Amino acid sequence: MIPEGHFTVEPWAVREPKLDLELLGETESIFALSNGHIGWRGNFEEGEPHQIAGSYLNAVYEQIRLPIAESAYGYPEAGQTIVNVTDGKIIRLLVDDEPFDVRYGKVHSHERVLDLKAGVLERTVTWESPAHRTVRIHSTRFVSLVHRGLAIIRYEVEPLDGSADLVLQSELVANVPASTRRENDPRTAEIVESPFEAELNDKFERGAVLVNCTKKSRLRVAAAMSHEVHGPRGTQTETFTGSDFARFTVATTAKPGQRLVLHKVVSYGWSSFRSVETMRDQVEGELASAYTHGFDGLLTAQRRFLADFWKRADVQLDGDDELQQAVRFSMFHVLQAAARAEQRAIPAKGLTGPGYDGHTFWDTECFVLPFLTYTYPGCVADVLRWRHSILDGARKRAGDLGMKGAAFPWRTIHGEEGSGYWPASVAAVHVNADIADAVVRYTSATGDRRFDREVGAEMLIETARLWASVGHHDRTGAFRIDGVTGPDEYSALHDNNVYTNLMAQQNLDCGADAAERHRDVARRLKVSAAEIKSWRRAAANMYVPYEPELRIHKQASQFTDHEPWDFEHTRSDQYPLFLHFPYFELYRKQVIKQADLVLAMHLRGDAFTPDEKARNFAYYEALTVRDSSLSACTQAVIAAEVGHLQLAHDYLGETALMDLRDLEHNVREGIHMAALAGAWLAVAHGFGCMRHHGDFLSFAPRLPPALQKVTFRVTFLGRTIRVSFDARRVTYALERGRPIAFHHYDEMIKLSRARAVSRRLPVLKKLREPKQPAGRAPARRVSAARPKELRPTSSPRSRPLLSTSRPPSRRRPSKRSPAPASARRRRGPSPPSTRAG
Amino acid sequence: MIPEGHFTVEPWAVREPKLDLELLGETESIFALSNGHIGWRGNFEEGEPHQIAGSYLNAVYEQIRLPIAESAYGYPEAGQTIVNVTDGKIIRLLVDDEPFDVRYGKVHSHERVLDLKAGVLERTVTWESPAHRTVRIHSTRFVSLVHRGLAIIRYEVEPLDGSADLVLQSELVANVPASTRRENDPRTAEIVESPFEAELNDKFERGAVLVNCTKKSRLRVAAAMSHEVHGPRGTQTETFTGSDFARFTVATTAKPGQRLVLHKVVSYGWSSFRSVETMRDQVEGELASAYTHGFDGLLTAQRRFLADFWKRADVQLDGDDELQQAVRFSMFHVLQAAARAEQRAIPAKGLTGPGYDGHTFWDTECFVLPFLTYTYPGCVADVLRWRHSILDGARKRAGDLGMKGAAFPWRTIHGEEGSGYWPASVAAVHVNADIADAVVRYTSATGDRRFDREVGAEMLIETARLWASVGHHDRTGAFRIDGVTGPDEYSALHDNNVYTNLMAQQNLDCGADAAERHRDVARRLKVSAAEIKSWRRAAANMYVPYEPELRIHKQASQFTDHEPWDFEHTRSDQYPLFLHFPYFELYRKQVIKQADLVLAMHLRGDAFTPDEKARNFAYYEALTVRDSSLSACTQAVIAAEVGHLQLAHDYLGETALMDLRDLEHNVREGIHMAALAGAWLAVAHGFGCMRHHGDFLSFAPRLPPALQKVTFRVTFLGRTIRVSFDARRVTYALERGRPIAFHHYDEMIKLSRARAVSRRLPVLKKLREPKQPAGRAPARRVSAARPKELRPTSSPRSRPLLSTSRPPSRRRPSKRSPAPASARRRRGPSPPSTRAG
Repeated sequence: MIPEGHFTVEPWAVREPKLDLELLGETESIFALSNGHIGWRGNFEEGEPHQIAGSYLNAVYEQIRLPIAESAYGYPEAGQTIVNVTDGKIIRLLVDDEPFDVRYGKVHSHERVLDLKAGVLERTVTWESPAHRTVRIHSTRFVSLVHRGLAIIRYEVEPLDGSADLVLQSELVANVPASTRRENDPRTAEIVESPFEAELNDKFERGAVLVNCTKKSRLRVAAAMSHEVHGPRGTQTETFTGSDFARFTVATTAKPGQRLVLHKVVSYGWSSFRSVETMRDQVEGELASAYTHGFDGLLTAQRRFLADFWKRADVQLDGDDELQQAVRFSMFHVLQAAARAEQRAIPAKGLTGPGYDGHTFWDTECFVLPFLTYTYPGCVADVLRWRHSILDGARKRAGDLGMKGAAFPWRTIHGEEGSGYWPASVAAVHVNADIADAVVRYTSATGDRRFDREVGAEMLIETARLWASVGHHDRTGAFRIDGVTGPDEYSALHDNNVYTNLMAQQNLDCGADAAERHRDVARRLKVSAAEIKSWRRAAANMYVPYEPELRIHKQASQFTDHEPWDFEHTRSDQYPLFLHFPYFELYRKQVIKQADLVLAMHLRGDAFTPDEKARNFAYYEALTVRDSSLSACTQAVIAAEVGHLQLAHDYLGETALMDLRDLEHNVREGIHMAALAGAWLAVAHGFGCMRHHGDFLSFAPRLPPALQKVTFRVTFLGRTIRVSFDARRVTYALERGRPIAFHHYDEMIKLSRARAVSRRLPVLKKLREPKQPAGRAPARRVSAARPKELRPTSSPRSRPLLSTSRPPSRRRPSKRSPAPASARRRRGPSPPSTRAG
Repeated sequence: MIPEGHFTVEPWAVREPKLDLELLGETESIFALSNGHIGWRGNFEEGEPHQIAGSYLNAVYEQIRLPIAESAYGYPEAGQTIVNVTDGKIIRLLVDDEPFDVRYGKVHSHERVLDLKAGVLERTVTWESPAHRTVRIHSTRFVSLVHRGLAIIRYEVEPLDGSADLVLQSELVANVPASTRRENDPRTAEIVESPFEAELNDKFERGAVLVNCTKKSRLRVAAAMSHEVHGPRGTQTETFTGSDFARFTVATTAKPGQRLVLHKVVSYGWSSFRSVETMRDQVEGELASAYTHGFDGLLTAQRRFLADFWKRADVQLDGDDELQQAVRFSMFHVLQAAARAEQRAIPAKGLTGPGYDGHTFWDTECFVLPFLTYTYPGCVADVLRWRHSILDGARKRAGDLGMKGAAFPWRTIHGEEGSGYWPASVAAVHVNADIADAVVRYTSATGDRRFDREVGAEMLIETARLWASVGHHDRTGAFRIDGVTGPDEYSALHDNNVYTNLMAQQNLDCGADAAERHRDVARRLKVSAAEIKSWRRAAANMYVPYEPELRIHKQASQFTDHEPWDFEHTRSDQYPLFLHFPYFELYRKQVIKQADLVLAMHLRGDAFTPDEKARNFAYYEALTVRDSSLSACTQAVIAAEVGHLQLAHDYLGETALMDLRDLEHNVREGIHMAALAGAWLAVAHGFGCMRHHGDFLSFAPRLPPALQKVTFRVTFLGRTIRVSFDARRVTYALERGRPIAFHHYDEMIKLSRARAVSRRLPVLKKLREPKQPAGRAPARRVSAARPKELRPTSSPRSRPLLSTSRPPSRRRPSKRSPAPASARRRRGPSPPSTRAG
């Protein structure tokens, strides 16, 4: 947990006004910078202290042994883990021979600011050395979103109270030792010590280059640095290189008022087949490009890039400043992870930490790409082209598993399956339909026909093939998919998981559509007419289990027969349950880690009636403990759709604050990219009730009681649509592109740049709010519009906030009530409610 | 596979008339000797060549790391594996300085005989050294069934064609290197190199002692040897010891007609807490005891022990000499594994090899103990007392898993769970009901009240408690047990596995009975009246899934909805399936590794009607591939009960020949103890249709067409009942004990020693023979009563045999026919048949 108030609330920045070494690992992730190719954790320039030193290049991994106690056919033989590449962040400082280290001397002030408009991390420190010399240090750091291979630091030191000898040591270091890690948490990464062997080190005028190669995966990493120095007269520099490191030293004596300024540009590149010399040339060439722009030019380009993004994608939340900040922070991090990934995967943690070994999972396609599809679609095509690049491996994997078509890996960096626990990986075959969904969504939202022909069609066809071989028609003709694992990781190997079946149904139909749309592709893949017909038949007869007595859909055939989890006797310190109960117990009971049937109602909302959605939501809400970060956003979306707007707001708070408040207790291992992407989904798909089924877009906005106004933007078929609504009216404005039609509730609206369209919002039916498992209600977000005297007074800031009456754990200990008594009192008595349906 | 004819067929011996080094590993297991405390594989005295050198002491294990790729709560942190203890078998021979090694020089003859009446392994070799000196070597070896700590070898050498210098080196060797093993077969053992550290070595008159301790598990093993030498005048001896070995050397010169004879007695002991000195004294004391009896006295005691066993337990099969031999071989091996285990477990491989790491599984209780309960019940109490000794650990394990009562480990040596794959271990919670079944069976079959009070009641109560917490009453009141794995390892995590539910039902009722029978025990365990009532209620409402459309019981709730396995397109070289298909595929389909519902019909036969049994058997027979050794015997039992007597005979053949023919291709790792115990079950519970439900015994004998007569004996409540029947009549004779009553079919028979009772056997309804999966029919056993000219002529022996037309694989390639065309022709056209029910 990160305590409330650790960061100040500002609309366009995340500011940490003072240092807390207890939260070092957490802030290393939160202040991580990336462009999808390079990732630098928010480590201090001086290198220490750190919790996890991290410099990453997308897809640079080392092969590891996957330990298996009882092996069986089809288990992966090797794993992959992200490695810490050459660290270019290091700039050590000596003040009168005393090394600058926040653990020594006295830190008078220490501020870090992540500027969401500039895309830079600034740090300002006033430090008194153990010998009582005080200096002011200011660094500005960014990973260029424009120049894919570059990361830049401006480092400035100024003595405040007397003349000082200043030495800067700017370094490149390979094989930086991994940190100590917590044990026994399956989400932490394997540690590979010294993954690199040295291949080349050389120096040049004010700079140096290192080339290293991973020992087993044989990936060659080159890093170069060059410097510009502004300092008092007499400032001297020197360059030195060794096999695993290079150092550029600056030495000077400065008086108060004099500043020593160092501009450091680091360039990175890697390749699995290019030679040492080529790689050296590449990174030195990148440096040359940086020279032509200069520090200010690079910074300006960075600002311009982000300005363009925010113009197309910004979200405004009037009435909840904390979430306003959190949503922009979320969008910034996802953008960073994706912007220049360029046909590489987006890992679950982006390039912000080693969590989950740097692997990519299904949530890229199900959470990250939907956000990007409607805000920054260009990079979606790239991620899906990466998936396409591993299609041959997926075909082979399907064959090895005894199936047809393509079976994509559950977790991977390079394309091979990297999971050591098959009931939650191989069996979670839904990943293939998730990828197909992302393909269909992207193609439909962009009209990118070239992508469709070159990439999309083949992926849809091969995944449709997979489903036809995974499922079967039973005696009644229904198409069943047995023994699979859905999104909820507290169930496994169930039959007819509704999410999986509905996603497969869409996949089968879209595969058939693609084969008919691209006869040449179908011919090349030897798709017969009978095969297409079999996909249509399977889709048309897809079995969707329903429990008539309870009038709800079953998460899977056997789910509702199981014993409900005993929430009443589960202590709050027993969450997350998977760290305190065996899967044997979890799988046998009605307890849900993360939205599953509810996610089906989001992504396949067209398959449910409004009444079914309301009843299903109420039933599953009472069983969902949200031990995964991939739940709150989906619950926000469906809560909003069925009419629980306060709850939707609460869940938006949970997903958007996932990392700024460290709600999952593991942000030190990296940012939860999908949960943060889910913040945008909670706003647009939740409050905006935006849906995109088939090729058509629709909105049905609804404002939560604690907000005054919501604005979001959607990129669709080259247009930018701005949706802005308060409690009574919505205004649609076309900010870019030719006229477009979409649904507003049941009305078809045609929108052109000439004129915004405004509509009065319908009044939604009041529903009884559903209950969460005992003690698992989300923190209630309080309305800023309430009279001031009713707001908690313990906080110095008068802004909406999480309830301050909660214990240190993120869950309140209350047993049954959906909100603490104080919050309920504040909201007054419940209005009369009718249950939907 | 071991080819037919490798062993000659004899009623009381397994004779290998010539050496085949290709089958060295297999014969090391088949010729292994044990008494349940000591196990010696059939390695040559000269030590090499060997496939797996093996000397074992029951429960001497080393702790190993259990590698887990993705750990989770409740996974075991350490494993255990059986280790090769001090090898006392070694007697090396030099002939004129040439070491005797069957790979050098020329082996003129090499015969090994396992004598099932004497309990000894004899070996006779005529060997010509590379220097052309020919000697005759004769060894006689046994592990004493009477003296628990002793193993004995008589070794004799005689030059045949000229005078020879003979040297014998009799040794004790610790840390004998493990053999190379096959990779990627989950059934093979972990290798621990050099598990021991040396603690003491010392020599004495014609002998020596070694004490060693395992490095991690800290088990102290002592071994001593003493010798008696008879040789030509001038024979000299010398003793030498080193830290890991001791050697007694005998040197002489012998002429033809002169023999050098060495009697070697080896004594073993181990302890987890006794001191080095105590352990030394213990094994030297055992040697002193051996002196007083002498080699002949020890051998006589061994014969007497076995004569007593065979008198009580022998089975006669007239008409199938090969199975006559195989059944006695089977019974001998199980007896060896159990006789002196004395409150230690009986591992799945006994002490014959390192397979399954030397672990004990549920099959001890479900297969081995039922055989022993009715033939040699004393050691059953011991095995169950071992289970009782680990009850505290099982209680703790249940608590760790979030359950009540006791949860016994799926696989263990010392008591801790040793499985690295929970869906087939933790989830196979039926092991607890299996143990309870063995407790109830033993108590009822022996009337051992002291055991019931001291051991049985507590185990029944704690396992009943487990079931009450594992299951739950659903909305209809039915008691469900969800998400468990039954005996069939090609399904996992299913709901309401019928076997599990019925065994749990019995366990709950027996737990309630025990609590009511032993109020003091119940009070001590804090069993309330409400708790007993809840057990009764759960048992009375136990849910047993039935499929009304197919009119069969479902193996588990979801089983019959799954897609049937595509047997037609499964090649014969893809068996066993688990080495060629992922569990993901196997679990999702209707394919059965081993009897599951059919085992329920055996152990809980009282819960099914005869018609249900017939229909169920036919349905599941078509899905059962027998990739486990734990299947054929159960199929034999139920095939016989429902009237498929030829098939029952075939399955008896498969289970009894499991190891003599190496049908599972892994006998080199050790004997399949449960399958061999199953041979007796196939005869007595199959052909004899003996059942023991509640406290009552019943028989309903029925003779397979290819046999002339079957005789078996049953020990029950201190009596020995001999059951002997041909196709038309059965005769019951009481060979020991007071009069007793039992059922013969529907008739109550009272039997006394005064008079045997004879009854005419009813004619059974003819049934259509069920089909097995394509290519998976068992080998048909041919009637010896058929005209001679129709029997295959390729074999030199005119005795019943396995079809000789089969390919090298144990399964015939035919697709659908239950027997090869040749076999069917021999039997003539099928008789008119009616389907039962």
